[in-house]
Amino acid sequence: MKKAAVILSGCGVFDGAEIHEAVLTLLSLEKHGASYQCFAPDMEQLHVVNHLTGEVVEGESRNVLTEAARIVRGNIKPVSECNVDDFDLLVLPGGFGAAKNLCTFAIDGPDCAFNSEVLTVCKGFAKAGKPAAYACIAPALAAKVYGNDTNLTIGNDAGTATALETFGAKHQNCAVDSVIIDQEAKLVTTPAYMLGQNILEVSIGLDKMVQSVLALK
Amino acid sequence: MKKAAVILSGCGVFDGAEIHEAVLTLLSLEKHGASYQCFAPDMEQLHVVNHLTGEVVEGESRNVLTEAARIVRGNIKPVSECNVDDFDLLVLPGGFGAAKNLCTFAIDGPDCAFNSEVLTVCKGFAKAGKPAAYACIAPALAAKVYGNDTNLTIGNDAGTATALETFGAKHQNCAVDSVIIDQEAKLVTTPAYMLGQNILEVSIGLDKMVQSVLALK
Repeated sequence: MKKAAVILSGCGVFDGAEIHEAVLTLLSLEKHGASYQCFAPDMEQLHVVNHLTGEVVEGESRNVLTEAARIVRGNIKPVSECNVDDFDLLVLPGGFGAAKNLCTFAIDGPDCAFNSEVLTVCKGFAKAGKPAAYACIAPALAAKVYGNDTNLTIGNDAGTATALETFGAKHQNCAVDSVIIDQEAKLVTTPAYMLGQNILEVSIGLDKMVQSVLALK
Repeated sequence: MKKAAVILSGCGVFDGAEIHEAVLTLLSLEKHGASYQCFAPDMEQLHVVNHLTGEVVEGESRNVLTEAARIVRGNIKPVSECNVDDFDLLVLPGGFGAAKNLCTFAIDGPDCAFNSEVLTVCKGFAKAGKPAAYACIAPALAAKVYGNDTNLTIGNDAGTATALETFGAKHQNCAVDSVIIDQEAKLVTTPAYMLGQNILEVSIGLDKMVQSVLALK
């Protein structure tokens, strides 16, 4: 049984992990016979967004790890405890949290900073030649980790694609129900809610992503 | 296309809606060709639970509607705006929120209070003869709504089952991958995380629940 490390970035699309993407990714891992352990950085979120109004809540702060624990019924660890040797593959679902908490791509674009603990784990999987899958906007991190000419996708948004290419990655347009696989880098990416209009659409791409990353050797 | 009203109770198993149950229920509705609108009561949660430690967070309060909005990317309305005439069926996923916010069954058992707005909507569907599905611990509300000799399940916990029967309902033991259907009441219930050990198990029962409630006439 393959064992996946899954990095979450909070709980809720606008300031954390995209909940559908996280749940459907874990479901697909189970469905295709893999086990998993979830992780998140033990840090304050960039901010808290009221998901009813879309507005930032002034004066409120939430912890990424504590909020991500909601998605996995408490079964989560600090990303600092993620040992690459213990896992066969890495998976990062999306949501703004990936681009606000794991890195600051949503705010700073190509000049963004990366959470050092998360970057260490991501680079560790790449260096060990272990497969990884990044969904939605999480490929912003993959672009930094894998760099030169690695094929990846965030869907078809030209501005975002160009920003990612400043890291050296090569963007490929991709439909919501499909994936981009870079065999050499052992990297799978899918647009998920960068393009998805509903849960069903997103579930198809994410299931392909999970199947593809589990198939990589 | 059948249209479902879905009532959520927050965001996170220990103080709100069970996230997997909510997402998988919505996925199943889409998969089987139904549309949906989510609702939640606009009220403070009973309390906020840190999902990493399981402990109640003193001095923090969160709104059920605002938090539930996280699960549905902001697409949710106050339950006071749910008009039974606009929908073909009703669905309530579980989580402690169903028994802490929609009613107080988790605290008060058979002596619990029910949120009046939620109870009005639930009774409205029952009175109109429109089908409804309740998962996990949400059948505590169904027991109150349907009463005398209506067949339902919360899995196989004897204490909880007895408490529910004080409302007049008739508890039936049920496996996580199955459902109890009361044809006369047009009520479908499934244990979900009252018994489920993982997302895959829960997804099977919830998908059966959704298929069954859509098949009821």
